Amino acid sequence: MADFAAATELKSIGDGRYGAVLDPQWAVADKLHGGYLLSLAGRAAVTELGEGFAHPLVASAHYLAAPEPGPAELTVEELRRGRRTAHTRVTVSTDGGPCVEALITCGPIDDAEPFFHGFPAPEMPPEDDCPRLPVEAPWFRVPLMGVVSERLDPDTTGWTAGRPDGRGELHGWLRFDDGPDPLDPIALLTVVDALPPAAFDLGVRGWIPTIALSCHIRGLPAPGPVIVANRTRYVAGGRLDEECHVWDSTGRLVATSSQLAGARHP
Amino acid sequence: MADFAAATELKSIGDGRYGAVLDPQWAVADKLHGGYLLSLAGRAAVTELGEGFAHPLVASAHYLAAPEPGPAELTVEELRRGRRTAHTRVTVSTDGGPCVEALITCGPIDDAEPFFHGFPAPEMPPEDDCPRLPVEAPWFRVPLMGVVSERLDPDTTGWTAGRPDGRGELHGWLRFDDGPDPLDPIALLTVVDALPPAAFDLGVRGWIPTIALSCHIRGLPAPGPVIVANRTRYVAGGRLDEECHVWDSTGRLVATSSQLAGARHP
Repeated sequence: MADFAAATELKSIGDGRYGAVLDPQWAVADKLHGGYLLSLAGRAAVTELGEGFAHPLVASAHYLAAPEPGPAELTVEELRRGRRTAHTRVTVSTDGGPCVEALITCGPIDDAEPFFHGFPAPEMPPEDDCPRLPVEAPWFRVPLMGVVSERLDPDTTGWTAGRPDGRGELHGWLRFDDGPDPLDPIALLTVVDALPPAAFDLGVRGWIPTIALSCHIRGLPAPGPVIVANRTRYVAGGRLDEECHVWDSTGRLVATSSQLAGARHP
Repeated sequence: MADFAAATELKSIGDGRYGAVLDPQWAVADKLHGGYLLSLAGRAAVTELGEGFAHPLVASAHYLAAPEPGPAELTVEELRRGRRTAHTRVTVSTDGGPCVEALITCGPIDDAEPFFHGFPAPEMPPEDDCPRLPVEAPWFRVPLMGVVSERLDPDTTGWTAGRPDGRGELHGWLRFDDGPDPLDPIALLTVVDALPPAAFDLGVRGWIPTIALSCHIRGLPAPGPVIVANRTRYVAGGRLDEECHVWDSTGRLVATSSQLAGARHP
């Protein structure tokens, strides 16, 4: 299922419970993608809250287990509803048990010009000059790349040819093959976890499982692709950080995230 | 109560429930400090998990309401226990209802040298050359400053004299007057939220309530003060981000956080 709307469709089964079908297309190797699972959780939260709380503002997900594709159930508990923000807790479960626990705070996001913008997007070559990442990636298959177009700045892809440059930074253009365009806040929850790990640029290899991911949605993207930049700044004791920033085609910062992940490193 | 250990003392009352007394000394104006509440939650999590999970690794707190000082109850639910990480959910409640909901993932943290350190501390003047922030602050009283020594680099304090410099950055030396020294991971959960808002350096004034805060603990600090740097990078639509980094006296990155907060701005 290429279509993001279909892959994140929810069926209300009452009492804050929703059914979903976890789609193996939205996966890295045979593991469902953590951002995709967070998009599902975000959609459940805003659906349950209803009018006035159309968008996730902050989503903090802790990853308990890697679920299998197939049927899942999401449960939403409303923790507190204020005038401009409402807090929820969302659990994603499959037959194997709970796999994601997330706190998701929602509210309206408007299109206001920023009062302060101190973090502009990196300079990028044109989208067409950046090669698209393939499904058959260096170390494993990435089905996600069949539905998400990620075109990295060639200046940040030395690691794909065995020459990581040691900065710990990747950036590129991103859009979904089958929408939504513009990307909406629910889709941005996938976007903030969609690039390859920036630690590949440091010579770290192999599986880098997310322990927890926290995302802020800051604006509603304009139409067209977004620019996404990932960077890793500290690798120690078998764990690393990854920070992600997303700018829309007009240069506004629309989402940020930070995650802690496990890693095998020298 | 100046003593952090006393102010965060917990009394087990069984079934994952703990009693605490919220201490008005650990407050900003008459609001209990968000980092202090997170330290209490972190202590409850590691206490409940016991051996093998001595430290919080990731703590994501969503702030539902501002509690009054006095008796509180914390409830810990263990979500999943693995070999190296265990996930919990902690709720802090008072007579007024739940005030903080947090997901706290715990595990062991060791003293390993970093494999990669791409974010060094800012150059700082000696601690004694940085004036300590007073309890009587420009816009309101900050009891926290009576127990936490915060000595900001004078280059980042123009806003205290009505001359914000527009960079959105503050940094300084921090230690607790009555320990612990070295600061431990539970104390670091307070530290990552302890500096004044970096948005004061952008000319934003007044109350800046935290909506949600996510913190990573990356190392065990060496003895002595830590260097703390806060920055705000995007202010729009009545909300702002704040990112915090903490380095120990040997230059290691020991904690980071990011938060989304509400703000009145032009």
